[in-house]
Parts: sequence; C-alpha cells; structure tokens
Amino acid sequence: MILIGERINGMFKDVRNAILNRDPGPIKDLAIRQTKAGAHYLDINTGPTVAPEEQPAVMEWLVKVAQEVSPLPCCLDSTNPDAIEAGLKVHRGKAMINSTTADQWKMDIYFPMAAKYGAAIIGLAMNEKGVPKDANDRTALAMELVANADAHGIPMEDLYIDPLILPVNVAQDHCPEVLESIRQVKILASPPPRTVLGLSNVSQRCPERSLINRTYLVMAMTVGLDAAIVDVEDEALVDAAATANILLNKEIYCDGWLKTFRQR
Amino acid sequence: MILIGERINGMFKDVRNAILNRDPGPIKDLAIRQTKAGAHYLDINTGPTVAPEEQPAVMEWLVKVAQEVSPLPCCLDSTNPDAIEAGLKVHRGKAMINSTTADQWKMDIYFPMAAKYGAAIIGLAMNEKGVPKDANDRTALAMELVANADAHGIPMEDLYIDPLILPVNVAQDHCPEVLESIRQVKILASPPPRTVLGLSNVSQRCPERSLINRTYLVMAMTVGLDAAIVDVEDEALVDAAATANILLNKEIYCDGWLKTFRQR
Repeated sequence: MILIGERINGMFKDVRNAILNRDPGPIKDLAIRQTKAGAHYLDINTGPTVAPEEQPAVMEWLVKVAQEVSPLPCCLDSTNPDAIEAGLKVHRGKAMINSTTADQWKMDIYFPMAAKYGAAIIGLAMNEKGVPKDANDRTALAMELVANADAHGIPMEDLYIDPLILPVNVAQDHCPEVLESIRQVKILASPPPRTVLGLSNVSQRCPERSLINRTYLVMAMTVGLDAAIVDVEDEALVDAAATANILLNKEIYCDGWLKTFRQR
Repeated sequence: MILIGERINGMFKDVRNAILNRDPGPIKDLAIRQTKAGAHYLDINTGPTVAPEEQPAVMEWLVKVAQEVSPLPCCLDSTNPDAIEAGLKVHRGKAMINSTTADQWKMDIYFPMAAKYGAAIIGLAMNEKGVPKDANDRTALAMELVANADAHGIPMEDLYIDPLILPVNVAQDHCPEVLESIRQVKILASPPPRTVLGLSNVSQRCPERSLINRTYLVMAMTVGLDAAIVDVEDEALVDAAATANILLNKEIYCDGWLKTFRQR
C-alpha cells in the first residue's frame, strides 16, 4: 500500500501562509512529520490562492524545500502543466504527476511529459462531461487512460487510475460504484494499471472523518486499491492500512506488523 | 449487517461458572448488555465443560434465561443435535441453528430440523476432510449446502454460509481466500444464500485483536458478508460496521449514522 501524504497543500492555512511569506519552516516541518509517519510520497499542491503565473515558481520552491529535509519523492499536484513541469525539472528521484484526466488534450500534454521525465502519473476517470455516475463509465474512461498511456510507452506500474470518490453525504451511491470500478480496473489489462484515491474527499463535511476515511480505505484495499492520498498523521488510518495489508496476505504476518509497516 | 453477540458461551469463565452454579444473573447481564450494544441475535453455547448428556438441559436453561430479559432471537450453538433441538423447543421467535457442516449425515439431521422449527441455519464450508485451503474448495462445499438446504425447502435467506476464517497468525493465506469465497457465494444462486463469519477467530492469540477483527469485518462486508458472530460490546467494531454499511449505500446516510445503526 502506497501512502501519499496530503498535507503540503495551499488549501491548508499553514501551508498557504508559508507560501505567501516564502517561509520554508512549516513546509519542512510537514515534510519531516509525514516522512516519519510512514508516507511514501509527499503530495505538493500550491493551492487555490496562488495566481496561475506564479504557480511554476511556487511548485519549484515547494519541491526543493520538501526534498531538502525528506528523501521521499513528490506527487506534483496541479491543474497547471507549467507548474507540473517546473516541479519535475527540480525533482530528485522518480516523481508522480497528479494528474491528467481522460480528456484527449490533457492526455496529449501529460503522458508525453511523464515519459520525458520518467515520472509516474495519476489518471482521473473523468473528462469534460464530469465525473461518471457509475462503475462501468468510470472503467470505460480508465480504459482510455490505459490505451493512451500505453501509446506513450508509460508502463502500467507507473499509471495510477483514480476513479474519483465523492463525499458520502453528497453522493452516497457513488461509494460502492467506486469500489466496483477499482475491482474492474485491476482486471482491465495484464499487467493491470495501479489504482489510487484522494481518500479524504469521501468524508468532506461529515462528522467522524477519520472513521469514514479509514473504513473506506480498508474497503478499497479489499478490492485492489494500490495507493491513496491521505492524512498520514492519522495513526488510526495507517494502523488500518497496515492491518488490511496483513489480512490480504501482502506482507508476512508478525506480531509487530504495525511498527513494521511504518518502517518500510 | 446482522450482528450475533458471541458472549454467552461456556468457553468464557464467567459463563462457565454461571452454568456450573445454575446462576442466571451473569447470563441475564450479558443478554441485556449485548442487546443494548446493538446485537440482532444472541449466540448461546454451553461450552466445552458441559458433559454431552447435560448439554440439552443447559441449552434449554440458557435460552430461557436469556429470553427472559431480551427480545432478541438466539443463535443455538452446539455440535450436539439434541442440545440444538432442546433449545429450539423452548425458543421464542425465529431461532438460528449454529451449525451444520457439509457432511451429508449432518445435513440430513440439521436441515430437516431447521425446516421443522422454521429456523435459520448456519452451514460451515467444511466436511470430514477438514477446512478447505482455498476459496474454490470452500465455495464447492457451499454449493452442497445450498443444494441440500434447497431440497429441504429452506429459503436462501435462512441459510448462512460460513466459509470459516482461521487465525491470521496461523493461516494467513486463508484470509484473502475466505474473502474471495464470500464474493463467490453471493453469486452462487439467485437469490443467493446469506454469509456469516465467526469473526473473532481471525485474531486468536494476536496482539491488537480489536483492530484485526474490525478491519477484517469491513473487508468481508465489502465483498458481501451479511452477518458475523462478534463481540458486540467492542464499540470500535460496531462503529466500523455501521460506517461500512453507509459506505456500501445499504442505509441512507445521516450525520448520526452511528447512533442510528445501534438503534435499529
């Protein structure tokens, strides 16, 4: 299970302020904390308050600051291709691009970019028509992402399909559909692409967010989820992921499996 | 999700002592506590220390005592057919028989008994050869249970297939096999039989038992588990079940879903 730490995102107040003041302290702190908590990638998102023309410089700065204190690769998170590429240029190690949609014009930008920089890439199962309502339509878009990635020589282990989970209190019927789509995507190709979710979205504006997040994470892992963008400092969530890993027989059981999971 | 409270079982010291002294107090207390905690059935098991010839009388006594203080039906849990029938004779409401195996001689005893008393029945996916090693062999035995139950006129909604989970620290590879078997059983017939697990077995002699139990419960619910014999006083487990129910879109979301689940 690959955990992508969600906290270096300008949508959070502390990160927004750090960006506005170009203060590396809070960014370094979040990078160190998430690394210690067991993250495998650090998501890096400039957030909504940075003007488009400033996003490449801010992305470059954030990646440099985070990688100064953490050995982890970054998940470069932006809708601005220039910001993604600015991050890729200074990134050390194998980055992940977050993300392309199944819109042809976006795939024509991002898949060549992923190939050029040897980066992994998240493909969202949506296009200009929005987020599909059911599992089959999500999987159909996943197929387009798979075909386009393959045409650009992206290996399936570098393509992460995100079937897009919506908040349970707004679109409850999507929750089982997304699970079914994950199951379908894992039998779509051989070898199959990987799967990822922006997990915290499932609990937006709900009480008991941590409980919802970790329950859905376990459910998604059961049907084939490979990675998730999460709050890695939520210990109950990481414990749940470690335990599901053991129960899926993906790592050998030992009495100290919780500690072992975090140390990998 | 149907929760069967596991605590009235002579394997627990307090229940064993209550049985030996014919002291109804601890049994009533456990019946009341499990009812309040949200159980839908009370499992009743005389335990290993009661001699076979005494088991029918003890089962009768336990059922009467439990139903004096709880409106819940019982899940009559014994390998002794006479004990099961003694319980059925005094049981108020629709009981559950726990259990038959797929051995023909047992099915020939228990399915007619279930039909006679209008009881639901648990069918264990094992026979004289023991517990199968993989999902397919479990499902093959489930098919035999389905065919025999059907021949005796047991409706599929009254047949609960238990694919038998073993402790993760002993038979880790069985954990995903049991999940796959649950998924298969739910597409075995139309309408399908129900599915059940003796959940706590998955964490026998492990640390973090509650974490393992609730994680595996959520995983099993994801692939179609309908019922489980559990520690209903484990609040984190019941919260996890309530949350999985919502995320499977089986009950309509409301902000108070945890409380709502317990009140049903």
